[in-house]
Amino acid sequence: MTNLPNDPRLALMLLSSVVEPGDAELDELLDETGPIEAVRRIWEGEVPERLRRITSAAVACAEDPADSARDIAEATEACGARVVIPGDPDWPPQLHDLHLVCDADEPHVRPPRCLWIRGDHDLAALCARSVAIVGSRAATDYGQHLADDLATDLTESGWTVVSGGALGIDRAAHLGAMSRGGPTVAVLASGVELPYPKSNRAMFELVLKQGLLLSEWPPGSSAMKHRFLTRNRVIAALTAGTVVVEAANRSGARNTARHAAELGRVLMFTPGPVTSSASAGVHQLAREPWDARLVTRAEEVIEDLTGIGGLAATGPPSQHRPFDSLNEIEARLVEALPRGYVVETPRLAAAAGIPLTAATETLERLRTTGWVDQIDRRWRLSRGGQP
Amino acid sequence: MTNLPNDPRLALMLLSSVVEPGDAELDELLDETGPIEAVRRIWEGEVPERLRRITSAAVACAEDPADSARDIAEATEACGARVVIPGDPDWPPQLHDLHLVCDADEPHVRPPRCLWIRGDHDLAALCARSVAIVGSRAATDYGQHLADDLATDLTESGWTVVSGGALGIDRAAHLGAMSRGGPTVAVLASGVELPYPKSNRAMFELVLKQGLLLSEWPPGSSAMKHRFLTRNRVIAALTAGTVVVEAANRSGARNTARHAAELGRVLMFTPGPVTSSASAGVHQLAREPWDARLVTRAEEVIEDLTGIGGLAATGPPSQHRPFDSLNEIEARLVEALPRGYVVETPRLAAAAGIPLTAATETLERLRTTGWVDQIDRRWRLSRGGQP
Repeated sequence: MTNLPNDPRLALMLLSSVVEPGDAELDELLDETGPIEAVRRIWEGEVPERLRRITSAAVACAEDPADSARDIAEATEACGARVVIPGDPDWPPQLHDLHLVCDADEPHVRPPRCLWIRGDHDLAALCARSVAIVGSRAATDYGQHLADDLATDLTESGWTVVSGGALGIDRAAHLGAMSRGGPTVAVLASGVELPYPKSNRAMFELVLKQGLLLSEWPPGSSAMKHRFLTRNRVIAALTAGTVVVEAANRSGARNTARHAAELGRVLMFTPGPVTSSASAGVHQLAREPWDARLVTRAEEVIEDLTGIGGLAATGPPSQHRPFDSLNEIEARLVEALPRGYVVETPRLAAAAGIPLTAATETLERLRTTGWVDQIDRRWRLSRGGQP
Repeated sequence: MTNLPNDPRLALMLLSSVVEPGDAELDELLDETGPIEAVRRIWEGEVPERLRRITSAAVACAEDPADSARDIAEATEACGARVVIPGDPDWPPQLHDLHLVCDADEPHVRPPRCLWIRGDHDLAALCARSVAIVGSRAATDYGQHLADDLATDLTESGWTVVSGGALGIDRAAHLGAMSRGGPTVAVLASGVELPYPKSNRAMFELVLKQGLLLSEWPPGSSAMKHRFLTRNRVIAALTAGTVVVEAANRSGARNTARHAAELGRVLMFTPGPVTSSASAGVHQLAREPWDARLVTRAEEVIEDLTGIGGLAATGPPSQHRPFDSLNEIEARLVEALPRGYVVETPRLAAAAGIPLTAATETLERLRTTGWVDQIDRRWRLSRGGQP
């Protein structure tokens, strides 16, 4: 008989140490059974083969899951961290949006299960009016100067700057935000007790005093390559928009940008010289069909985030859209589309209760009539198309 | 009895020396009477008050219009120029597109009546596959380097580079185009015998050998501020697209860009550092609702000009668009819209034979359903909306 943690929060903390965030199979199990029963099934091997395989090492090392969960809780307390889970008052509701874009092809696009936090602010309150500034670690002086300036001015205007705590643009954004005593949120790919990279230690100390350190991984977790990509979706989902300041062609910042676009967040970029490889990725971003907006200063970022001017100014809100002109299948698909987020055709067809072939044809027609946009192979209600 | 020029070409040449291009009243008179009779009416004062006022000085100085026209023809021959007029085989047909955007508010947006040309190429052939590169006179080294590179590569790929012969970006674009022996077209705001500015003299000599000098004004005309703005519409209309390389906030290049957007030409810009005031105008351009595309190199310019990749790649051509789903008024408006060009509501309503109020309401509805785009107060068929 397995000794189980007696608290769902403890169970989620334990599961975070056993299965990486974004695992679709674990998420389904959690939806079905809740966290305590999920721990039991994993420890007693009553889970599908794949989940058993990826959890077997952890299960073998930790004979008593209740003990292991307590160890994590102690490590959490030891570093002055706390844990928030969905349903807590300071859980940011906007993270739920990740449910709407989750996709079988891309397991990492799912909401976090559990967040470790260090710092004195209320996470939900701090992120209610927040903007991400992200970019290359190998940033130029130009890019860092720009990120610093944007972050300072956005913070002065009451926006919380969120970034990833990395060297380069992230660092400049955090420091700019904090330069006049403001807060900032660093979303980490390592445990909150030892934020990565160590060379940003002094900066993280400051973040701890003025803002928040955030992680999906328990204390003791180290930053690994795939964790940065997993982490990026949280940066995009927490914020109302993402500004990419500098990014080389294969920068992780482009991955954050893509999440932002898919979540219907405002995607922005600052341009640079076309001769600078540090700006090549942002210029490429500008040519993607993602509606990325060029911004040069904080007022333009705020203009785009709040919908004053820019695209929003090209026409009045479209309450005139003749929803009545749609036929039944069209109307059902449009109603089933989440506002601003992207979904795959099969998921949307299922939600609307329409066969896949009919949905595919109809969506194509709705695209040409301007009701929906297609991003990669997914759909969203078009900017002008809120019925 | 007035002594009239006996040839419509001579009459148009004379009229070009008397009334500035883009004069709506003269254009209407020409449409009504043809050029020879227009000369007679002007010289005999049988024209509306405004036209009489602006032509009175010229009429007083030139008692014999046939003589004056011959003088212009001699000056034209003396500098090795020739004149092309609409209907000539080397008249570029795309200039006709300016008819479609002409607007009572903006008299300069009308096709030229007559063009002076120096150089050995056929103008229509040279501009059939052409692209404009324009920008600030007060360009940076960065901008000039970029314009030069783009022009060289576009010329190598068989595109004719058109620009305005000015210092800075224009000059760099012409020189880049000619650097490996290629042609280029300089569209002037002065007579072709003395291209402005004089400091570009050596460059103009080269243009004369390898390409074409072009002007709407007869020999002896000097470049005046308003003529640059008038000239810009010809640069935009001659070419399949315009690339703005560097432009300060009030640069004339933004005026060319606007014409390009209104003509349904592809509008592109190269970004620069946000800290450079020489790029402030292009970054502003990127935030206008004009569909301006960010480009960093010649391949991207060609991609955008030819519709491969970029926006065009986000969906198949929209032959699926259910034109049948439109009601009668909608269908008449959509059919009356010129492809890719902008027109004002009253003109469009008149063309479709629909009362102005109904047209205004219906166009707003067509905008929200994605059939038409609005640029300032004018309409065009939307990119995805060719029926």
